[in-house]
Amino acid sequence: MTVLRITFLGTGGATPTPNRNPSAIVVRRGSELLMFDCGEGAQQQMMRAKTGMKISAIFLTHFHADHVLGIPGLIQTLAFQGRKEPLEIYGPPRVGKFLYHLLSLVYLTRDFEIRAIGLKPGDVVRRNGYVIRAIKTEHGVPSLGYVLEEDMRPGKFNREKAIALGIKPGPLFSKLQSGQSVVVNGREIKPEEVLGPPRPGRKIVYTGDTRPCESVIEASKNADVLIHDGTFSHALKELAAEYKHSTAVEAAEVARKAGVRKLVLTHISPRYSEDASALLEEAKKIFENVIIAEELMTLDVPFPEKADHT
Amino acid sequence: MTVLRITFLGTGGATPTPNRNPSAIVVRRGSELLMFDCGEGAQQQMMRAKTGMKISAIFLTHFHADHVLGIPGLIQTLAFQGRKEPLEIYGPPRVGKFLYHLLSLVYLTRDFEIRAIGLKPGDVVRRNGYVIRAIKTEHGVPSLGYVLEEDMRPGKFNREKAIALGIKPGPLFSKLQSGQSVVVNGREIKPEEVLGPPRPGRKIVYTGDTRPCESVIEASKNADVLIHDGTFSHALKELAAEYKHSTAVEAAEVARKAGVRKLVLTHISPRYSEDASALLEEAKKIFENVIIAEELMTLDVPFPEKADHT
Repeated sequence: MTVLRITFLGTGGATPTPNRNPSAIVVRRGSELLMFDCGEGAQQQMMRAKTGMKISAIFLTHFHADHVLGIPGLIQTLAFQGRKEPLEIYGPPRVGKFLYHLLSLVYLTRDFEIRAIGLKPGDVVRRNGYVIRAIKTEHGVPSLGYVLEEDMRPGKFNREKAIALGIKPGPLFSKLQSGQSVVVNGREIKPEEVLGPPRPGRKIVYTGDTRPCESVIEASKNADVLIHDGTFSHALKELAAEYKHSTAVEAAEVARKAGVRKLVLTHISPRYSEDASALLEEAKKIFENVIIAEELMTLDVPFPEKADHT
Repeated sequence: MTVLRITFLGTGGATPTPNRNPSAIVVRRGSELLMFDCGEGAQQQMMRAKTGMKISAIFLTHFHADHVLGIPGLIQTLAFQGRKEPLEIYGPPRVGKFLYHLLSLVYLTRDFEIRAIGLKPGDVVRRNGYVIRAIKTEHGVPSLGYVLEEDMRPGKFNREKAIALGIKPGPLFSKLQSGQSVVVNGREIKPEEVLGPPRPGRKIVYTGDTRPCESVIEASKNADVLIHDGTFSHALKELAAEYKHSTAVEAAEVARKAGVRKLVLTHISPRYSEDASALLEEAKKIFENVIIAEELMTLDVPFPEKADHT
């Protein structure tokens, strides 16, 4: 099974604390490493989490300092490591301007290209075996959330039926499972004869900073994991509205409406940096399967049918 | 006694490691907090070290990423804290351009002015009770080291002589000690009658990244503390020369020639990040009073006569 692993590098709010870094998440999918936001200190957290540093692409939700200031240092370190592969940096349209200033800031010698790619809600970045969709969020500045959605998988293999059709377990099974026809006793057997209906892949949604909003609910339908802004306790819901963040309760309501499998609250305000149990408790009343993101926490995302059995 | 305390926030080389941050030092002198270099993560280290964040000025040695990338996040956090006082940022002439790109990089709302002030070797920044001198270093890009030198202090108070002159211990003693004349039995007694010759204040030198060089030796004469680039072991002296850094041995030779009281090696290469004892041992053979800077280490600088008695 292709690994799909989320590592939380920075789970704090707009200012770091001694025990929470600014926003940064990496997702390993198979041999690929994707980064979502890259707050100050992200490169050091990658070293601590042992995620490796061969990032394929960085997806930025918006250009507030706490989501992007880790990029120049990371680029510098990748340059020191001798990277040659281009690095794609996606984000709201300002990403080009951001990159211009970024690369002018310090002396920087590198042997790899940096490609800034501006996105708007609805844009889809097609990658090998999955897509990243940019979705609308609501944070007072141009901002995006991201959906990582794997391609449909072949249906469940009907082993009994295959044997009944005269196919021997072994290489022909694998061929059918991977979607190719086989010939047995002079007859062509098509994969759809022994496979159930195609099954969805896995789906992760990351909101970045946002108010609770319809576009996130819509985009999160059936998500395996929703990583949502959970900056404040509901006691501070006016503050959440003013600063365009979400309370733990608001995030839980989004998760419930979207019917996601698991909710992870992140961007935890310094108020709750050491003890976020109040956020967890109030969210649990609305949506049971919720956790608080912690520094260097990893989360392996199983296929839905596996998740439902655990 | 006015406190003079050095706190090491980042003691690593050009790339951070899990246990060493990029370069940053704060010096508290009385109520003032000065920063020398500000690598990525410096603000978080300040929180961990509990130095406070009311920085009066930042002095940058040069514009390599590992010495400056903590500034935008720090400025952002100072803005969140409601800072109103101007912040001075000193550095080589490029500091103006650096600041332009820095402030264009991210959305940043602040109520305080940021003043970029370019310096060249020999420039002196006069402050209340001390000066900061910019000195020549050698690092392949425009670079500076800094000397913090306190003003001369009144001489040692001769208590016996004062009593012999008919002065009673108490307020008159304090007046004389602070440099004012007093009148006893109708006679004016001048402070120089009961004070020894003026005594030097304390002196700290920070090189930033540099090859060993004459200008640093010259500027470090009689320094209480010399904080010197000690990136490499002497076994890698060719590498040190190529990358314009110093070995521990080279730094120790500078300390010996300058006759400093204490040498602190910093900018430790990732090779020795967890165990820098090899650097310490080779430096000790040349200069006995040497230590390796460690993260969050603090060093109180005593007046020379106190230091010599301990």
